[in-house]
Amino acid sequence: MINNPNSFHLIQTCPGSKARAGELITPHGTVPTPVFLPVGSQGTVKTLTPEEVKDIGMEMVLANTYHLYLRPGIAVIEKMGGLHKFMAWDRAILTDSGGYQIFSLASLRQVSDEGVIFRSHIDGSQHLLTPELIIQLQEALGADIIMALDECPAHDASLEKVQKAMKRTHRWAERCQRAQRRSDQALYAIVQGGTFPQLRRQSAEFLTSLEFPGYAIGGLSLGEPKRVTLAMVEETVALLPENKPRYLMGVGSPEDLLEGIARGIDIFDSVLPTRIARNGALFTRRGRYNIRNAAYSQIDQPVDPDCDCYTCRTFSAAYLHHLFNCQELLGYRLATIHNLSFINKLMRKAREAILHGTFNSFRDGFLASYQPTDENVRLSQKQKWLKSRNLSQ
Amino acid sequence: MINNPNSFHLIQTCPGSKARAGELITPHGTVPTPVFLPVGSQGTVKTLTPEEVKDIGMEMVLANTYHLYLRPGIAVIEKMGGLHKFMAWDRAILTDSGGYQIFSLASLRQVSDEGVIFRSHIDGSQHLLTPELIIQLQEALGADIIMALDECPAHDASLEKVQKAMKRTHRWAERCQRAQRRSDQALYAIVQGGTFPQLRRQSAEFLTSLEFPGYAIGGLSLGEPKRVTLAMVEETVALLPENKPRYLMGVGSPEDLLEGIARGIDIFDSVLPTRIARNGALFTRRGRYNIRNAAYSQIDQPVDPDCDCYTCRTFSAAYLHHLFNCQELLGYRLATIHNLSFINKLMRKAREAILHGTFNSFRDGFLASYQPTDENVRLSQKQKWLKSRNLSQ
Repeated sequence: MINNPNSFHLIQTCPGSKARAGELITPHGTVPTPVFLPVGSQGTVKTLTPEEVKDIGMEMVLANTYHLYLRPGIAVIEKMGGLHKFMAWDRAILTDSGGYQIFSLASLRQVSDEGVIFRSHIDGSQHLLTPELIIQLQEALGADIIMALDECPAHDASLEKVQKAMKRTHRWAERCQRAQRRSDQALYAIVQGGTFPQLRRQSAEFLTSLEFPGYAIGGLSLGEPKRVTLAMVEETVALLPENKPRYLMGVGSPEDLLEGIARGIDIFDSVLPTRIARNGALFTRRGRYNIRNAAYSQIDQPVDPDCDCYTCRTFSAAYLHHLFNCQELLGYRLATIHNLSFINKLMRKAREAILHGTFNSFRDGFLASYQPTDENVRLSQKQKWLKSRNLSQ
Repeated sequence: MINNPNSFHLIQTCPGSKARAGELITPHGTVPTPVFLPVGSQGTVKTLTPEEVKDIGMEMVLANTYHLYLRPGIAVIEKMGGLHKFMAWDRAILTDSGGYQIFSLASLRQVSDEGVIFRSHIDGSQHLLTPELIIQLQEALGADIIMALDECPAHDASLEKVQKAMKRTHRWAERCQRAQRRSDQALYAIVQGGTFPQLRRQSAEFLTSLEFPGYAIGGLSLGEPKRVTLAMVEETVALLPENKPRYLMGVGSPEDLLEGIARGIDIFDSVLPTRIARNGALFTRRGRYNIRNAAYSQIDQPVDPDCDCYTCRTFSAAYLHHLFNCQELLGYRLATIHNLSFINKLMRKAREAILHGTFNSFRDGFLASYQPTDENVRLSQKQKWLKSRNLSQ
């Protein structure tokens, strides 16, 4: 791995917090961190062209090995010249290992040390994925950053169960590392351990001993209270090396991003900004608002008058309301563009603040005027959603 | 109407056919004819931004007064500054009168000389539309070209029924003309008469005596055989003035456009290219192909290698197949861009051929290699679709 073109440069840590500014060097460009990755599970950031994702300012996207394995099949993408070419995205890509999807979307899982046997959520077909195969598949896809296979238990699983999953995740991480053949991809390990601080520490210590080029924190943001999520992030980050990127998986609300950054996270991904956009929920400086609300039906101003995204530059809230009211597909696009622009600008401003040594006041200023979604509403929505994906026990 | 900024200039008629090249001057730009108008029923060409519609090369779009009347309501659009501003489209717009929609989409129609009482297809609410109100609504929307209210009987209605509807359409056309207040919109009349040549002639003669600035041919392409459609077009066009634009409503397949042009039509509109795109059917030089077909799953070439549209420049057929297979919204967009580009290029090439005096050989050349959808398949698909909209008796 000596000549691996992937690297991470820590540029500055903000005084008074753990917030870091850095950059990820990849074969497909340099990605300033902290960074949010929009999710393109099936090789497309839902509703958008690659040009639009670029125009928004995104430098890296996430795609899901699990989804692409089921459709169109990894061999097809390999034959079409790899994932970058297939989806016409020439900037950086991170592929998830599929661990989370197998444990959330698929059914009839039989987990053994060998790997996971699961049934496709699409057609019920049965598949075995092993750590070695996951690496082989991700090498065929050709993303810049690839992920080790992990076992992801439910947030309310017992200590015994979480510990067992963690230890298996560790064995799998070692096998993934040994299975790696390509030297131009960065393989990140995933710290597990649920909501048990001692397990999180154990997992971080074990995995860092294997010297991966980056570390993800998995198994969080799965329905546990936010203070627990953040406590686990703190426990984990404390044991991760300074010079390696840290990736908090599945986190994407404005307030959570800032709290994650404050705790030393460099990379985030989440379907949240795009999923809620298609449901009409739009980020603004004051909080999240739903464009379906009748109050918008005659508003001649943009949804967010402070915003310079294509949607807000071009259309009134009344028009967007009309599109959602008529279930016009253009509405889902315009809302997606707005939400991703909002998140991307938030990340860029956070980075600037870190470089200026003013991150804490930036965060406090943002959170003073931004009204997060009520915690109880959020949890019940999240659990409903997870239940629909059978990850809640 | 002396200073009406709308006008039509006939530039050239092709020797050996009735094909004409001209231009429509409108307050929102000059539109070369023959021209195809993509349909944006609800103030949006489905899936596309105005910029994309422009990039494809479209100079005018159609919007439906009926749809916009029901949602968001004409008063809302007027308050937002008119339809151009509301949908952020600064080129020309034609609004349909809603006659066709009332007789196809709405239920419980009571037609009297006063107007039509119908129930909304959305919420069942009851409405009365009169010729005067239709003009008032279209003046509030502010399109460049507006349409008179017509009564549109089913294609298999009796002569008596069709004649009655035609006469009522004539009386309504007169009332629409008298009701017009704005002098910056061109009001077109709609020739009816079903599939009865004598009624078509009668309708064309009566309406041309009223000296409208343009004439549409309505009540065709509703399930009757193509030869009948074309025969009715010929009967009608023969009696329309040379110096006025002729608009064949509801026609949009490549072969029908060329046959319509050959018979002296200047303007067309149809949902066909965009509707079939969302169903995966894509135009190519050889005919219409469905991207859902498994044969495309591993094709590294564009759907149509001769095409220079964004979709074909950027993505493989395999990727488009994958998007449709996964019901990804981006697929519907990309297919829509391709089909509208195909139709727009066909219209531009037809116009060039007319200007070069070679339209007949252009049309013959195109039709020699283009395999139209089988007539029986087409008719049964169309009738199924019309039945779903309760226009078939």
